[in-house]
Amino acid sequence: MNVCGLIVEYNPFHNGHAYHIDQAREIANADYVIAVMSGSFLQRGEPAIMDKFHRARAALSAGVDIVVELPYVYAVQSSELFAKGSVQTLHELGINRICFGSESGDIQAFTKAYHEFTENQNQFQLQVKQSLKEGLSFPEASRTAYELIGLTSKEMDLSKPNNILGFSYVRTIFDNNLPIEPLTIKRINSNYHDTEITSPIASATSIRKQIFEAQTSITDLKFTMPSSTLVELDAYQIKAGLLHSWEEYFPFLQYRVLTMPTAELASIHGVVEGMEHRIKKTAKEARTFYDWVDRMKTKRYTWTRIQRIFVHLLTNTKKAEIEYFTTLPSVPYVRLLGFTRKGREYINTIKKQLNVPLYSKLSRNIHPMLEIEERASNAYYSIIPTLKRSELQKQELIGPVLHT
Amino acid sequence: MNVCGLIVEYNPFHNGHAYHIDQAREIANADYVIAVMSGSFLQRGEPAIMDKFHRARAALSAGVDIVVELPYVYAVQSSELFAKGSVQTLHELGINRICFGSESGDIQAFTKAYHEFTENQNQFQLQVKQSLKEGLSFPEASRTAYELIGLTSKEMDLSKPNNILGFSYVRTIFDNNLPIEPLTIKRINSNYHDTEITSPIASATSIRKQIFEAQTSITDLKFTMPSSTLVELDAYQIKAGLLHSWEEYFPFLQYRVLTMPTAELASIHGVVEGMEHRIKKTAKEARTFYDWVDRMKTKRYTWTRIQRIFVHLLTNTKKAEIEYFTTLPSVPYVRLLGFTRKGREYINTIKKQLNVPLYSKLSRNIHPMLEIEERASNAYYSIIPTLKRSELQKQELIGPVLHT
Repeated sequence: MNVCGLIVEYNPFHNGHAYHIDQAREIANADYVIAVMSGSFLQRGEPAIMDKFHRARAALSAGVDIVVELPYVYAVQSSELFAKGSVQTLHELGINRICFGSESGDIQAFTKAYHEFTENQNQFQLQVKQSLKEGLSFPEASRTAYELIGLTSKEMDLSKPNNILGFSYVRTIFDNNLPIEPLTIKRINSNYHDTEITSPIASATSIRKQIFEAQTSITDLKFTMPSSTLVELDAYQIKAGLLHSWEEYFPFLQYRVLTMPTAELASIHGVVEGMEHRIKKTAKEARTFYDWVDRMKTKRYTWTRIQRIFVHLLTNTKKAEIEYFTTLPSVPYVRLLGFTRKGREYINTIKKQLNVPLYSKLSRNIHPMLEIEERASNAYYSIIPTLKRSELQKQELIGPVLHT
Repeated sequence: MNVCGLIVEYNPFHNGHAYHIDQAREIANADYVIAVMSGSFLQRGEPAIMDKFHRARAALSAGVDIVVELPYVYAVQSSELFAKGSVQTLHELGINRICFGSESGDIQAFTKAYHEFTENQNQFQLQVKQSLKEGLSFPEASRTAYELIGLTSKEMDLSKPNNILGFSYVRTIFDNNLPIEPLTIKRINSNYHDTEITSPIASATSIRKQIFEAQTSITDLKFTMPSSTLVELDAYQIKAGLLHSWEEYFPFLQYRVLTMPTAELASIHGVVEGMEHRIKKTAKEARTFYDWVDRMKTKRYTWTRIQRIFVHLLTNTKKAEIEYFTTLPSVPYVRLLGFTRKGREYINTIKKQLNVPLYSKLSRNIHPMLEIEERASNAYYSIIPTLKRSELQKQELIGPVLHT
């Protein structure tokens, strides 16, 4: 039996994702496809455009059998922790293959890069350290180090975001000797940061830009997404009264920062090196969320890093409470967000052999890491009026969505 | 030279307040009248209807010479600390008389009550303790104790809020042997909690009710307020786009509570006896601010007490940071909010003899208690869109308003 894992955000689910599922199923010869998906907030430090349940439903409609949650603790993090949480979650569910998108679509290039990386790890680390000292950002420092050890070639360019994520998955698998075969397919859309939409395969970033900046109606974007995504986006907009973007959270984030003593600011996950003073200073000046990040940005602090910190501020995630979980050898539980009937069959098969608990509802006192999840969810829904919000948030207590 | 102190909130300034000033000036034979006024949040745990500067301006127009701020640390507190902060602030400014409104208008009744109270203090404390043990609220427990020692007579009924405040002022003066003569005038409007408006002398509560609940236009309430208040209310509404009421803060308060771990909730000033669990539980159910307080209310926890806790939650005021200041023998500084030319003369006369610093601007790192004040101000203005807010909040950095 082959079970293929996908590591996804589906923000929102589009044609490229549908292609990814089909290809993965084929090259993995998969009996089941399981996606581990970021929940309320995403890796690059953004709120998801609609909630995890509506995103899960869109994925199930498009062919995924099971959707589980990548816990907040791993999701809103650098690629290393993001990969660790995702791969370990899939591993706990007994998958034997992981298929990810990459620029080249050549898995050999990844395994070769892994071995080159392991051999030159000391040199790599020293170069990163040196560059950080010189004031470079972490991504920039990594890039110079990859360059030094020859990992920015055309064959394997680790300066490309998607390659970095793929490489991190491969590293997690090999470093931990997990019984997982990594597979990769070539991405169709050429650029991760594309903002103009020119084909039915568009990046999620460009779709969001069209929705939030160009105010394009969802119907006008239907050529980029399966109809199931349109249905879910429409349904969500009606239920919530909005789609989520950072600007909606700006008043809450600003309120939060402006009522925090500096020492408390410094206790938030990701706030380091005296950044708390810069956050305080810019908080008053900022006119919009975008403007705020822009004022925070330096050579050293990338846009993404600042956005992640802002998510942790919004969700009140303290260093002390998150550190413990990120050092665990594996994830402490798996949380189901949704499944098809077929997916449920698989869950029933493996349920008794799992090494970690399988949670399907957010109930009181089950796990301290789920408390962080609940806070993230509370922050996520906070921009929605109370009545609508409590209707939507009910799903957290009801449990996973079933797609029939 | 006679300098008369008034202890006020002016929320908003109305005809009753104007009467109070005139009477106070007369019976105190005052050369100067100084008002100590709550800032952003008020004693009963509410946001002020408009900011301190606009309220100060209305007071200066109506005949007060100097308005200073009652620090947040003392303002959003029970009558004892409220009185302590107010009387000590006035004392630091060299006033020799304090005039307050009361039901009877008879100062003898207060001094007599003070002596009776001091003689029976032990009995009083025991009764309060006993009643609290039985689950009564603090005001109820106090009432039974006052009853026991004979202080709920028609002559001096300490179950009436205004009498309690007046009694607390007298107590602060006498307990600390301050060189201040307490004076009182009879209140004209019969009931502190009046909500219907039947005469030009209406309570501030009833005026706010008309504005927020009956949606009465300010112009239609002009018979209850001097024209200067109308001018300030109008100006504020234009500048801020709103007048402040608790409901406006509901999303922020709810967001804040729903992203706080229980232990952090318990660290907030006023949250005692496991109340944090009740706050957490009701936070999700509450539909409006009013509904939330209603769900929180018990025999033991009065509406006012809950509102005060909600203010501390909104402003992120921790037990640890407030306790120190409330145990100081006097206030650590005096902050000017506004003055007339005449008031400025007085300030120039006394400036060099003050025992505490006199602050006129909110600048960085001047005093840790002012940092709490700044946070309260940030929370207060948080419901106003950024551009309007920063215009309004500028006044905190410019300094006191001058009425010419």
